[in-house]
Amino acid sequence: MPTINRRWVLASHPEGKPTLDTFRLEEVELADPAKHELLIQAKYFSVDPGMRSRLSGDSYAAALQPGEVIEGAMVGEVVQSNNEKFAVGDLVTGGFGWQSHTLSNGRGLAKLDANLFSGPLRATAAIGVLGIPGLTSYFGLSDIGKPKEGETVLISSAAGPVGATAGQIAKMQGCRVVGIAGSPAKCDYVTKELGFDACINYKDTDNLVDAIKAACPDGVDIYFDNVGGEMLDTAIANANERGRIIISGAVSEYNKPEPRGIRNTLQFITHRLCMEGLVVFDYFKQFRDAQAEMAGWIKDGKLIYTEDISEGIETAPAAFIGLFEGENFGRRLVKVS
Amino acid sequence: MPTINRRWVLASHPEGKPTLDTFRLEEVELADPAKHELLIQAKYFSVDPGMRSRLSGDSYAAALQPGEVIEGAMVGEVVQSNNEKFAVGDLVTGGFGWQSHTLSNGRGLAKLDANLFSGPLRATAAIGVLGIPGLTSYFGLSDIGKPKEGETVLISSAAGPVGATAGQIAKMQGCRVVGIAGSPAKCDYVTKELGFDACINYKDTDNLVDAIKAACPDGVDIYFDNVGGEMLDTAIANANERGRIIISGAVSEYNKPEPRGIRNTLQFITHRLCMEGLVVFDYFKQFRDAQAEMAGWIKDGKLIYTEDISEGIETAPAAFIGLFEGENFGRRLVKVS
Repeated sequence: MPTINRRWVLASHPEGKPTLDTFRLEEVELADPAKHELLIQAKYFSVDPGMRSRLSGDSYAAALQPGEVIEGAMVGEVVQSNNEKFAVGDLVTGGFGWQSHTLSNGRGLAKLDANLFSGPLRATAAIGVLGIPGLTSYFGLSDIGKPKEGETVLISSAAGPVGATAGQIAKMQGCRVVGIAGSPAKCDYVTKELGFDACINYKDTDNLVDAIKAACPDGVDIYFDNVGGEMLDTAIANANERGRIIISGAVSEYNKPEPRGIRNTLQFITHRLCMEGLVVFDYFKQFRDAQAEMAGWIKDGKLIYTEDISEGIETAPAAFIGLFEGENFGRRLVKVS
Repeated sequence: MPTINRRWVLASHPEGKPTLDTFRLEEVELADPAKHELLIQAKYFSVDPGMRSRLSGDSYAAALQPGEVIEGAMVGEVVQSNNEKFAVGDLVTGGFGWQSHTLSNGRGLAKLDANLFSGPLRATAAIGVLGIPGLTSYFGLSDIGKPKEGETVLISSAAGPVGATAGQIAKMQGCRVVGIAGSPAKCDYVTKELGFDACINYKDTDNLVDAIKAACPDGVDIYFDNVGGEMLDTAIANANERGRIIISGAVSEYNKPEPRGIRNTLQFITHRLCMEGLVVFDYFKQFRDAQAEMAGWIKDGKLIYTEDISEGIETAPAAFIGLFEGENFGRRLVKVS
């Protein structure tokens, strides 16, 4: 009996902010798995702000074309298998996009280790804190930020999955960690649950430069940027000598036809700043070790993570668009089944 | 008999582009050298674009105050000495600013080695190719740029002292080197005398992005920036993956109340770029070795340098202001005596 795959494809390249019309829900019939193939039923997939650039233009990967399935990370269950490496009931993860079912020959598919994913480490962590967002925090901080004990680390989108993880890791390294987030509830979460030393609600601040100055009395040694534009400029204005700026995301810029960018480039000379961008796939060979270390922290209760689950595959476009309004609280995932 | 020192001081902080009224020429009487002191007669001093920021605001050093002597590097001759380390007739160098005479206790003063400074290595090289500009090229390239054989290095202000030196060093490392300069004569100098592979006259180019693309068919691996703003943005647009951007100067930005900055920050993520600023004094302990290496290159004819001499201490302000019009051709110095 054929399986019906429901999938979200690109309807048309958006100009500026994506709308519901950017996406189209399709139903297609999938054949039964051929030899060596297996069929996966998605349980969750992710909606990622960084994917925005692929909707309209060239990025580190080529632009998505109309009709192509929207990208995202998926956690699912094997429901049929002609592949000896995977059995029915296995939980698997892979970059299979916004769809309910996937036929796979096993390539790019990883089985979740049932021993590892237990207790506080839920299967969804594979596409969150142990997936691209968490690994971005881990390698951005360790490879570009290089925090030293006693340094001050400033983090934007602090309640988001990248910022939250980066801040907790920086705390483990003995840093003073200050977040920037967009609501009192987010700031409470950032300081009380994640253990940041302070959090600035940028929506409640007339002068962000002064607010950062007050929250970072010794200046900013590392800025972990998920926002770009004006917030990046403001952080640069507060950077100490030899400050490091990790460009991990730019949620304020993705929807602009002409990005705002930064004005504060002279500070790079006067303060010997270094700003570096990050694509986490470059660290692919180190993923497994990093995941094992972070899994240990989670099981020990040193690293927590929050998910913001949107129910039903129909909700995916709205869940994605909401990311640019700062709606999400933690890693935003869509629950498919 | 007292010595009359003629010196240029800051008359008032300029807004925007400095004018002749920014500066005031004073005459003051100097006492005879006290015990351990010596008197230096300046022969040449430098006018530096990077000094612009100190005229109006805080930079890596504090702002200059009205009445203070304008900064610059000086080469001079000892004319009186009560200091056993310096004899009358010694050539010396130090950061003594825009003045004809200096009383010194020897601190911050270096004697030029007569054996080293001979032949093609003139005394003025001590405040040029072996001074701050040349050392900026040397350390910017070696410590931030880290050129590898076969890479493409793009250099703005290529006919200026920093760019010219950086390009020649990059050629020695086996790189393809492309300059950007502001006249056909400068471009000729850059390619024919300095040996760059190509030079773009940005004043004769409608579309600098395309001009860079044509001159750098394999993209830009290292951009050595002396200009900032739009030119920096354009170079970023052409940067290869893992491109390095050395922020050495920003002559297009210094006179602006609000700098233009850059728009192309998303490329830092998509192309894993790294941009770093440079203050050459951070490498102070390595100066001597770098100078010895560069002196060797000059004596071997591998590294050439050009000076643009303005005659007479009266000409200093105009010589300085002209830097921002791209007037100078090589290291601009003022001949005092």
